Amino acid sequence: MKHLAILGSTGSIGVTTLDVVGRFPDRFRITALAGGRNVERLAEQVKAFRPRVVATADEEGAQALRRLVPSYGGEIVPGLDGLERVATEADAQLLISALVGALGLRPTLSAIEAGKDVALANKEVLVVAGELVQAAARRAGVRVLPLDSEHNAIYQAMHGHRREEVRRIILTASGGPFLHSTKEQLRTVTPKQALQHPTWKMGSKITIDSSTLMNKGLEVIEAHWLFDMPPERIDVVIHPQSIVHSMVEYIDGSVIAQLGIPDMSIPISYILGDPDRLPLDHLPSLDLVRAGRLEFVAPDLVRFPCLGLAYRVLDAKGSAPAVLNAANEVLVEAFLAGGIAYLDIARIAARVLDHHAVIAEPSLEELLEADRWGREEALALAHDAGARASA
Amino acid sequence: MKHLAILGSTGSIGVTTLDVVGRFPDRFRITALAGGRNVERLAEQVKAFRPRVVATADEEGAQALRRLVPSYGGEIVPGLDGLERVATEADAQLLISALVGALGLRPTLSAIEAGKDVALANKEVLVVAGELVQAAARRAGVRVLPLDSEHNAIYQAMHGHRREEVRRIILTASGGPFLHSTKEQLRTVTPKQALQHPTWKMGSKITIDSSTLMNKGLEVIEAHWLFDMPPERIDVVIHPQSIVHSMVEYIDGSVIAQLGIPDMSIPISYILGDPDRLPLDHLPSLDLVRAGRLEFVAPDLVRFPCLGLAYRVLDAKGSAPAVLNAANEVLVEAFLAGGIAYLDIARIAARVLDHHAVIAEPSLEELLEADRWGREEALALAHDAGARASA
Repeated sequence: MKHLAILGSTGSIGVTTLDVVGRFPDRFRITALAGGRNVERLAEQVKAFRPRVVATADEEGAQALRRLVPSYGGEIVPGLDGLERVATEADAQLLISALVGALGLRPTLSAIEAGKDVALANKEVLVVAGELVQAAARRAGVRVLPLDSEHNAIYQAMHGHRREEVRRIILTASGGPFLHSTKEQLRTVTPKQALQHPTWKMGSKITIDSSTLMNKGLEVIEAHWLFDMPPERIDVVIHPQSIVHSMVEYIDGSVIAQLGIPDMSIPISYILGDPDRLPLDHLPSLDLVRAGRLEFVAPDLVRFPCLGLAYRVLDAKGSAPAVLNAANEVLVEAFLAGGIAYLDIARIAARVLDHHAVIAEPSLEELLEADRWGREEALALAHDAGARASA
Repeated sequence: MKHLAILGSTGSIGVTTLDVVGRFPDRFRITALAGGRNVERLAEQVKAFRPRVVATADEEGAQALRRLVPSYGGEIVPGLDGLERVATEADAQLLISALVGALGLRPTLSAIEAGKDVALANKEVLVVAGELVQAAARRAGVRVLPLDSEHNAIYQAMHGHRREEVRRIILTASGGPFLHSTKEQLRTVTPKQALQHPTWKMGSKITIDSSTLMNKGLEVIEAHWLFDMPPERIDVVIHPQSIVHSMVEYIDGSVIAQLGIPDMSIPISYILGDPDRLPLDHLPSLDLVRAGRLEFVAPDLVRFPCLGLAYRVLDAKGSAPAVLNAANEVLVEAFLAGGIAYLDIARIAARVLDHHAVIAEPSLEELLEADRWGREEALALAHDAGARASA
């Protein structure tokens, strides 16, 4: 029986994790859950899995949860304290870290320091603080495991093979809805157009990031930290069908790939079940004949400069990735709110990096300060751009 | 230092194996070589690798070799005795079994009984006598390892994962030159047309087998024995680009695939180097962007009935696979000699199977007798067909 805690149980990864867990009640026990604003969903989860501890977004959420599940006898802890309690719940062996944004960074570090393995869906944890997180994991002797489909594919493609025999990692990217758009067409992209992802159903922030290739850039940074691989040995290839989830090339020229239908149950179950695979008989088999063809295209860094920015901050190291991530978050919000144009996301993010004095080997506090600074600087530049555009 | 013996050193697999060995002189020593009719090539190999024992096709070959390499001080043994000597050479740990046809069966079994691991490129060893060979390997505690690209891909895709978690094996097939031909067009296929293989350069027998899908059928039988997998869990998919060398689907829906450029150095080096991969820096990396697209098509058992015959003999078991293999060899020869039509290969092979009374759990002698009977029966039916056609 494996004991699990989940940060972000009411989000897409949290819900899918609980769906997998619910199919194998003899294998898993949920000891702690941290949900978000969707208290109704959290209440359902509490009824179904009876964790010892539940975290809510705030005190109001805690009261709502008590009303919805009056019979619940465990602890309900609101706010940041709740996230810390869930992350460090004594009984859990594995933390599913599936919050969105930098919010998940502190509790994930706490779980690592408390000696728990961590399964990561929260990109920002490694993008912002990869060096700190991996150093903490080494000290604690715990593993940081990838939940998202690309890094999980790489993890599977490396399993049983030797890290030192890897020649390069090949991350696949769907290419998003603008794969075939011209630079001119990209100038006038609307939020509605950018929110149409061809294969995966995801939240709006990550859908925009997929369309700009910033999402793939952040994944390059994650892959760097997860697999201890230098940037020049991490390649990206556009693969619009999103069936090959990623690949690893070895020193003999062999390429090992993991393929599958686009269902997050597969990577999640691979991490949960370790060392066993879980039989997911409710999912259809991958039908390559029906898929017909798999295409591969080189990414265009002129039309999609965000990918290049990711390699730039990996070269710069230190606080630079945190700044890029923070600026991008603010700029995507500004774009969705109609404040800036689509191409401004990459343009202003690059400008923010130009203005940033990189701190080498930053502390957690310095990283969070860099995050704050990146947001402010991006906001200011976005405001100027918006003002100029409407002038 | 790993000591190797090679059966079939002057054929395509033997030559590639020696090329790989020659690149890593600190890792490998060649202790025994058995070559074929190409004595000049064998002489070059003897000069370069100085094995202790050399086998030649016959006494004439032995004399020619002595003339060509007068300084050679090792043993030269002609004929079947030579094959046995090479296969059981005391110093060798691994036998590369790369003869063509049933000729390799006895010496390969001898190597297994002498406690040597065997790397198989000689299809017929498992097609004809899979049950005997695997039983002998279990008794001797040795491994039978796949050298050809498809089974090697499956072997790589299973490495580090658990056999009992495999849902199915997916063998890829190029589909050959007649992938898009109608049944009507297949009626008039000439040997010259059938010898044009789209991706791999191979001998004429295997090129014809690729075009009829008999080659893939024989590989289904091999996969059954190599991976202890029932026929209903071995699928074939046509993949004209021959870049995905084969795949394994697991119980969670994950598919692990091995991809690469079409160069036999890769699978050969994977077996030779075990447990290390060998750096093959002289080969270009797989360039998926240049490949552009990978296609997958279901095999058509109406136009390519040979594939169905392979599943038929796997169901029938016992002596049936040996008979199919024998009949096919004779029929391909008859086709190449202009004696029968292209579609007669499958038609007459099926007829031979109709006439065969399957022997369950056959001995080696019974298998070799079934092989002889299958050849005679196929020859007789081919003769009738030829006589009718020219009448």
